[in-house]
Amino acid sequence: MNQKQIKIVTIGGGSSYTPELIEGFIKRAAELPIREIWLVDIEAGKEKLAIVGELAKRMVKKAGLDWKIHLTLDRRTALKDADYVTTQLRVGLLDARVKDERIPLEHGMLGQETNGAGGTFKAFRTIPVILDIVEDMKELCPKAWLINFTNPAGIVTEAVIKYGNYDRVIGLCNVPENQMVSEAKELGVNRNDLTFHFAGLNHLVWHKVWDKSGDDLTQTVMQQWLDSNEQGVANIENIPWVAPQVLNLGLIPCFYHRYFYLEAEMLAKGLDDYAKNGTRAEVVQKVEEELFELYRNPNLEEKPKQLELRGGAYYSDAACELITALHNDKRTIMVVDTKNNGAITDLPTDCAIETSAVITASGPKPLTFGSFPIAARGLLQVMKSFEQLVVEAAVTGDYGTALQALTMNPLVKGASQAQEVLDAMLVAHYDYLPQFQAYIDAHLK
Amino acid sequence: MNQKQIKIVTIGGGSSYTPELIEGFIKRAAELPIREIWLVDIEAGKEKLAIVGELAKRMVKKAGLDWKIHLTLDRRTALKDADYVTTQLRVGLLDARVKDERIPLEHGMLGQETNGAGGTFKAFRTIPVILDIVEDMKELCPKAWLINFTNPAGIVTEAVIKYGNYDRVIGLCNVPENQMVSEAKELGVNRNDLTFHFAGLNHLVWHKVWDKSGDDLTQTVMQQWLDSNEQGVANIENIPWVAPQVLNLGLIPCFYHRYFYLEAEMLAKGLDDYAKNGTRAEVVQKVEEELFELYRNPNLEEKPKQLELRGGAYYSDAACELITALHNDKRTIMVVDTKNNGAITDLPTDCAIETSAVITASGPKPLTFGSFPIAARGLLQVMKSFEQLVVEAAVTGDYGTALQALTMNPLVKGASQAQEVLDAMLVAHYDYLPQFQAYIDAHLK
Amino acid sequence: MNQKQIKIVTIGGGSSYTPELIEGFIKRAAELPIREIWLVDIEAGKEKLAIVGELAKRMVKKAGLDWKIHLTLDRRTALKDADYVTTQLRVGLLDARVKDERIPLEHGMLGQETNGAGGTFKAFRTIPVILDIVEDMKELCPKAWLINFTNPAGIVTEAVIKYGNYDRVIGLCNVPENQMVSEAKELGVNRNDLTFHFAGLNHLVWHKVWDKSGDDLTQTVMQQWLDSNEQGVANIENIPWVAPQVLNLGLIPCFYHRYFYLEAEMLAKGLDDYAKNGTRAEVVQKVEEELFELYRNPNLEEKPKQLELRGGAYYSDAACELITALHNDKRTIMVVDTKNNGAITDLPTDCAIETSAVITASGPKPLTFGSFPIAARGLLQVMKSFEQLVVEAAVTGDYGTALQALTMNPLVKGASQAQEVLDAMLVAHYDYLPQFQAYIDAHLK
Amino acid sequence: MNQKQIKIVTIGGGSSYTPELIEGFIKRAAELPIREIWLVDIEAGKEKLAIVGELAKRMVKKAGLDWKIHLTLDRRTALKDADYVTTQLRVGLLDARVKDERIPLEHGMLGQETNGAGGTFKAFRTIPVILDIVEDMKELCPKAWLINFTNPAGIVTEAVIKYGNYDRVIGLCNVPENQMVSEAKELGVNRNDLTFHFAGLNHLVWHKVWDKSGDDLTQTVMQQWLDSNEQGVANIENIPWVAPQVLNLGLIPCFYHRYFYLEAEMLAKGLDDYAKNGTRAEVVQKVEEELFELYRNPNLEEKPKQLELRGGAYYSDAACELITALHNDKRTIMVVDTKNNGAITDLPTDCAIETSAVITASGPKPLTFGSFPIAARGLLQVMKSFEQLVVEAAVTGDYGTALQALTMNPLVKGASQAQEVLDAMLVAHYDYLPQFQAYIDAHLK
Repeated sequence: MNQKQIKIVTIGGGSSYTPELIEGFIKRAAELPIREIWLVDIEAGKEKLAIVGELAKRMVKKAGLDWKIHLTLDRRTALKDADYVTTQLRVGLLDARVKDERIPLEHGMLGQETNGAGGTFKAFRTIPVILDIVEDMKELCPKAWLINFTNPAGIVTEAVIKYGNYDRVIGLCNVPENQMVSEAKELGVNRNDLTFHFAGLNHLVWHKVWDKSGDDLTQTVMQQWLDSNEQGVANIENIPWVAPQVLNLGLIPCFYHRYFYLEAEMLAKGLDDYAKNGTRAEVVQKVEEELFELYRNPNLEEKPKQLELRGGAYYSDAACELITALHNDKRTIMVVDTKNNGAITDLPTDCAIETSAVITASGPKPLTFGSFPIAARGLLQVMKSFEQLVVEAAVTGDYGTALQALTMNPLVKGASQAQEVLDAMLVAHYDYLPQFQAYIDAHLK
Repeated sequence: MNQKQIKIVTIGGGSSYTPELIEGFIKRAAELPIREIWLVDIEAGKEKLAIVGELAKRMVKKAGLDWKIHLTLDRRTALKDADYVTTQLRVGLLDARVKDERIPLEHGMLGQETNGAGGTFKAFRTIPVILDIVEDMKELCPKAWLINFTNPAGIVTEAVIKYGNYDRVIGLCNVPENQMVSEAKELGVNRNDLTFHFAGLNHLVWHKVWDKSGDDLTQTVMQQWLDSNEQGVANIENIPWVAPQVLNLGLIPCFYHRYFYLEAEMLAKGLDDYAKNGTRAEVVQKVEEELFELYRNPNLEEKPKQLELRGGAYYSDAACELITALHNDKRTIMVVDTKNNGAITDLPTDCAIETSAVITASGPKPLTFGSFPIAARGLLQVMKSFEQLVVEAAVTGDYGTALQALTMNPLVKGASQAQEVLDAMLVAHYDYLPQFQAYIDAHLK
Repeated sequence: MNQKQIKIVTIGGGSSYTPELIEGFIKRAAELPIREIWLVDIEAGKEKLAIVGELAKRMVKKAGLDWKIHLTLDRRTALKDADYVTTQLRVGLLDARVKDERIPLEHGMLGQETNGAGGTFKAFRTIPVILDIVEDMKELCPKAWLINFTNPAGIVTEAVIKYGNYDRVIGLCNVPENQMVSEAKELGVNRNDLTFHFAGLNHLVWHKVWDKSGDDLTQTVMQQWLDSNEQGVANIENIPWVAPQVLNLGLIPCFYHRYFYLEAEMLAKGLDDYAKNGTRAEVVQKVEEELFELYRNPNLEEKPKQLELRGGAYYSDAACELITALHNDKRTIMVVDTKNNGAITDLPTDCAIETSAVITASGPKPLTFGSFPIAARGLLQVMKSFEQLVVEAAVTGDYGTALQALTMNPLVKGASQAQEVLDAMLVAHYDYLPQFQAYIDAHLK
Repeated sequence: MNQKQIKIVTIGGGSSYTPELIEGFIKRAAELPIREIWLVDIEAGKEKLAIVGELAKRMVKKAGLDWKIHLTLDRRTALKDADYVTTQLRVGLLDARVKDERIPLEHGMLGQETNGAGGTFKAFRTIPVILDIVEDMKELCPKAWLINFTNPAGIVTEAVIKYGNYDRVIGLCNVPENQMVSEAKELGVNRNDLTFHFAGLNHLVWHKVWDKSGDDLTQTVMQQWLDSNEQGVANIENIPWVAPQVLNLGLIPCFYHRYFYLEAEMLAKGLDDYAKNGTRAEVVQKVEEELFELYRNPNLEEKPKQLELRGGAYYSDAACELITALHNDKRTIMVVDTKNNGAITDLPTDCAIETSAVITASGPKPLTFGSFPIAARGLLQVMKSFEQLVVEAAVTGDYGTALQALTMNPLVKGASQAQEVLDAMLVAHYDYLPQFQAYIDAHLK
């Protein structure tokens, strides 16, 4: 273990996920010489911060650790000399997510959190805040790593690299970990007995898999998914793939590829669910309320089981593992969002991708994937253009760029549909979109 | 004028377009020392070939030229020692085109001739025939240029380069010429007083335009299209663009971009038109019958005006101009489909693109366009992947690749919709798809 | 003719070349509606400026033109509202060139004007001055074209694009024109009956050539050079190529390739000539004195024949032709130094190359050349790295970068030899190297 | 440990290095379930094979292992069902190496084993033999890995990938391992406490290094080399670097960079040594004789210490470690020669490079390095062109390509010098150059 004691800062520390994060650190106490953890939140999250912060303190105490847990609304004080900064913030809270999902569906379009109109607005709200944090970090802790798992994680990473000019950023997602765990289980082997190679974009990542003898299991695993039809995560519908199409890829898609490969079915199901149950955000809202009810219990000293139903399994654990790997120069292979640097030769070298990478003390080093098979290349490229336009619009507040971003997205049926949804969402999220307010005032009010 | 006398071969010589082609040659007689023109067709086109061939002879005679016009069903004899070979063939004739348009529409999808399911099947039928012609050319006239204006022209050009291994191929389309003529008219200037730079794919080409002082008129022209709403060609609906989206491109799109940028409207209009009038192919069928009625008249000695209503204005003229430029090393700039070679840095160097190029005696030399603005890049790239998959499927007859091609297309709503249309069209076009027949026999019958 | 009247500014107007430039403009008077020409020089060139300026006035008057010729030392006044700015300046005058050639030879190394240590120091002296001019242009005539034929022309163009952030710059060299003229003569055809395609770097450019039928004459012409051994320009020794090596290129090299392909012989000859005759710069100095003697003659009203012996044939003519092509949107193909933009796929898209390009009113558009044959590629790439390092060192004044530049050059035998020459030349050129003076003061004095 | 028992074949098994290889396997017996090792040699090496083979048997026996050691001249029988094939062959034996070194020196040129004329001819002799082996492997053991440490290792790897169309090949060199070990020693830390990232070509590889905290030590280490001047391997002269040049790289060069960065000194030293001591090959010849004298001793049961003086330290160990990593899917990072695949964005994706890579059961996965600093890029690229020309000439036997290869090499002073050496060496190595014999017969005899 690298003995240097570390300071960790979690922005959005009042999140319901925080107990998982704390648990992840506790599990790794032997490898992670933590001195202090700062949980930071904003005024609106003050109460939740207090609740979850006290739970965190009880968890650490029960584990017999001497880590100092600080709860604060003062971000700059927290960031001073930090070693690792994690972000799990949600600008506009779950209310904003409800709008992200509802408004697109009301316009006959999928509104999911990453790749559609919903994710676009989540990026519009989040990127200015993250870039502010990055400015603070450059001043207060310029050697710290920013570990981001705020969605859309890939888009946020791209923004930090391109517009924040800050390379010490790593995005994380739980989808690859989910896939690795479930594929190993399906094959009846140990997760570490398989070698995986992931490449693509966040929530649009493909992978290949080999066994210990170096034999390529990719098509075997894909066929197994087709036979069992059990691939999926809590928040993605488990609609069956079209076999000859996915088998033609030569790669295993991720759960979120259903939005593209099964567009019609996913939309129909989304509309149907919405009619019956409202948005997923509203479900989450209820779960969260219940979780905080549990967290309030002064006798609770560990992460409650119910949190696992929340949907973000492996997320916090991935963050803890990443920090441990960075701190100890572990050179393990993890799937992260980072700068391409040639790993995928079909995309610009300076854009953000999601990729298998060796985690060293000096950061992640992506494994080269080479050129994508044509069967997957075009979708990868069009979605990267979408991502880049979203980032540019988020930073500049340019209406035309925002409209272009949505029009570029294959899930959107042209510029008119894009414009309807864009306008409705700009108005709905007005308070959290300072970069667009002048435009909205002039044209949409 | 290069004095070397030339032999021109037109495959699909029985087409109703032939008189335009002949007129184009006659107009350029001073620059084109033609010795003989061979009009070639297949058994099924014998009668049309006789009708249009006799008209061609009368036209040449009236022009006072001594060119020999040969009519034949024997392609190999025609190709022997040819200098230029033009192709305007339609495998399966207009009946096949009716199916190309009708079946997709019946599945709620656009069935247009190039970029959708219709174009895919036109490619599947055409590519094997064109590759056969190329094999003959390598043997019988290995220095001849193949001038292709059979649609989908870009996809066919890619097939000839990649799978025919024949570089002396140039694809042509009338869309750029249409745009240049109408923009000059709109601006009230001479067409040659504007400098245009086109780049993209066939039926998915963007351009910029400058005046004689070198000032960039791109946004001015785009705004003018928005104001007048008169941009269009006979077979593309003139639905208004969404202004902030197209203005954000920094490039002028072509008519066919409406399929993508105005997807919902174009589909609605397509379905509506189909309900009212049947397919465009059926309209064309009637026009063709009327044209051949006219052509039969032994007193007709020139191209009848009615041909211009047929929809392919500038097509044959472009081909004649291209041959003249090649033959005389004119070094004029034309828009052609040819090998990328670095002109568009966002696409592989060895794929086919549509581009402004200098036409020299040794072939077209594309002008460098550089990297596309992100606002257009992703669509360009995803459609190139689609094109490449179509070509691969057309050559191999692989069902999964064909399915992947359609799934990749942003106009198709996922793999299930793709599969429905694919299966219906494979069955419908069975006779003209030798490469897929084994699969169809085994799985779809 | 584009009727807009133009203002031309020539920096280094007191150069002995100016009469050729004036003659070039006069020849093109029918296409170039010149209103005024400003000849600008510095205090040290005042007398020459007066002499050559008066000759220019007499030439214009004799041609019956009403152009105003202004002579000035005030660059900013001259630049105000200019349309075209040409640069033919020589920082440190011929004395500096004497050192550029002498010092390397004294260290057993070639000291030629472009690609060796001499060219490196010419760049170090010139680039800061050119970047100053560019700053003035951005302010005083932001739409003007900068036509540079100050050597090293390619390196200067790269500096203006990368560090001046000014894209309206075009570099020119007379080598390609020389080759085209002499090859046509050698083949006994009209220069315009051949199609040439040049690509590479300034003074390191290769080309291919075709006849009017599109047949590739490249190897034929190369063989002819080998047979006749008459390829060359005044200032390059005519040492015979090694046949199997140059024939293996598949491209015709330029005269300056002899420095690399015949390194040993060129060095021996250079040392021998130097021992016998001193440097070429000293020869030129004498020629210049004689020229100015002639220019003084108040009865001289045209360019004296003797100027053609000076060595820069076609240089000024190329500049006049380029301005005419730009002004009239002529779309002729010329060989220029400009941004790569994909024309050569083996080099970065944003670097300067020498290439055949279509000259339009909005600037040169390079023809795509694609990837170089491996037989030439490596030399192209290593010299581009050399050029980029020279530019970086010229701008930053960083000693290590300057040393690296010379070490990278294949003509230099490692870092020790590089350092010896570098140090000697830094000291010798001290007065004209403000960017390096602090280093020289601290380490070399 | 992966329990699958394995068969290893060593081509050139009679080499004096074999005891090191056997020792390497014995050290790793716990991880490597070897069933049989086949040592293969040719008729001329029969005696040495017997001597070293018996020693190998004694070593294995002493280690208490039941591995079967087979000695054979029948390569095809040996290859049948092999899992790993290592090659350490020397076509023409040390006599050929004497010529490789002597002839270039006699022409005033460096003749070292990899990057100069000597390496070129080693490649010419070796590549046809290796490609023959690869053809056998495709037939007899198509899943086997070819581990090549025959020099020039990078060039041979490129040949196998490009012309052998065999991807399961990995080249190895001991230079990186040497550097890692000595830098750790110099810093007084454990070798594994440093993270290294190597990228470049074989014998032209640069690297960066970080400590456990992720701090970049590259410049610190470089400075240390400058201070101590102890960087080097047995067969590379330890001439001091020129400090500002190497410090400007931002990367640490390898020992062999001295040939380029200290060209003049290395040549002088080479000539001097040759005058005094003859070639290094002759020294090695004596050492080899002494080694075989030792090997003959029937009481010798382990690798004699003297072998370490031989010069190839770490070579065999690296091979054993690589096989262990492949067999056990260890995912450790090693430096290997393999397909670029985007790792270095300045080189073609399909060429061979030397790079840090994660070793998995399905092969090495290079870490992305991105674009090289310009300070090193040009040399990298020109030497890659040299390598590619060498491979092409080795396969085709084309004289012009061979001449071009040497001319491209910055260590050669132009085509005339290249031709002299080429012709002398073609004649000298006639017996081992079947691909060039027709040319030599016709032109050089």
